Amino acid sequence: MIQKEIILKPKERGFHLITSEIFSQIPEITEIKKGIAHVFIKHTSASLTINENADPTVRTDMETYFNKAVSESDARFFQHTFEGADDMTSHIKSSILGSSVSIPITNGKLNLGTWQGIYLCEHRNKGGSRKIVVTIMGE
Amino acid sequence: MIQKEIILKPKERGFHLITSEIFSQIPEITEIKKGIAHVFIKHTSASLTINENADPTVRTDMETYFNKAVSESDARFFQHTFEGADDMTSHIKSSILGSSVSIPITNGKLNLGTWQGIYLCEHRNKGGSRKIVVTIMGE
Amino acid sequence: MIQKEIILKPKERGFHLITSEIFSQIPEITEIKKGIAHVFIKHTSASLTINENADPTVRTDMETYFNKAVSESDARFFQHTFEGADDMTSHIKSSILGSSVSIPITNGKLNLGTWQGIYLCEHRNKGGSRKIVVTIMGE
Repeated sequence: MIQKEIILKPKERGFHLITSEIFSQIPEITEIKKGIAHVFIKHTSASLTINENADPTVRTDMETYFNKAVSESDARFFQHTFEGADDMTSHIKSSILGSSVSIPITNGKLNLGTWQGIYLCEHRNKGGSRKIVVTIMGE
Repeated sequence: MIQKEIILKPKERGFHLITSEIFSQIPEITEIKKGIAHVFIKHTSASLTINENADPTVRTDMETYFNKAVSESDARFFQHTFEGADDMTSHIKSSILGSSVSIPITNGKLNLGTWQGIYLCEHRNKGGSRKIVVTIMGE
Repeated sequence: MIQKEIILKPKERGFHLITSEIFSQIPEITEIKKGIAHVFIKHTSASLTINENADPTVRTDMETYFNKAVSESDARFFQHTFEGADDMTSHIKSSILGSSVSIPITNGKLNLGTWQGIYLCEHRNKGGSRKIVVTIMGE
């Protein structure tokens, strides 16, 4: 069992591919024959998901969709808006997308599909750096 | 590996912070140096998520949002409404939010961010008591 | 720790109960006294969720809801539509529903609630066969 806390560089609002930013910091993964990598974000206004790793327009389209589905123009219906229109909407997006992803490890590598990557979903206009905890269980 | 079934007290429709209701019943967590706590709900009309633990209006705003996004006034488009307008909508909300959360454990404690807590999302008007299974893997 | 890659038979667009299609291929689960089964889909246009296992209209209603919430008539707002109107919408649905489910194992069986089953959510018009990785951690 390996556990490591990682601090991601601040990213602008939107969806970002972070598979290598995380796993370049965990070389021990090569020793795991089979297991699970659990990636957890310690925040409630940014989230993690797995999606398409090749075409950057998928990340743009995700931002377009979620800004429409959880709209800041509805912020008037919310009470928790101390920090602006992107405050409560960020909490909602986080719960829809989730605070962790978990991925099988096979023969020393993440066993992702060809087109899969891990996204950091930064929902705040100014989110700052984000803390991630990676826990690897395996043998 | 520790596993325990917990019965949560019935809660009214809405979002409820349940971190201590669950983990006060699992004192063994203090013995885990590093690991994962997996929390699973055995129902399809209530769900679990991680969100802001301090301001109760976040929980109210979550209820406001999900009632709009998965509206009971759309229940006429659904077939599975035997138990009322909150029947199918509860199933949908459950799949959007998810039936489990998993959280790293570090030095005998849940390694949550400062502002994170576990929510029970009760989607039914009268959900009754809810069964949770907590599984802890660690060393 | 048991790990197995499973290929699901191609399914038509919509929500499908796949608990037995998966676990009939993992008889070793009977040897696990307590643990976790992690089920992961290696695709970004199909997803996994847990929902009602008895009434097939729940699966139809799920498809109805998600087609409305992530509408193909909004495809004009997206850039990633090379493969048709169901391309980007499938990626979005996948992130909302998620690429994995994890379920406690107790006394050799999935410890699901009476009404819970695992769904494959096929978001593409022609998704083809889908690869699943099941990882079981337990003792």
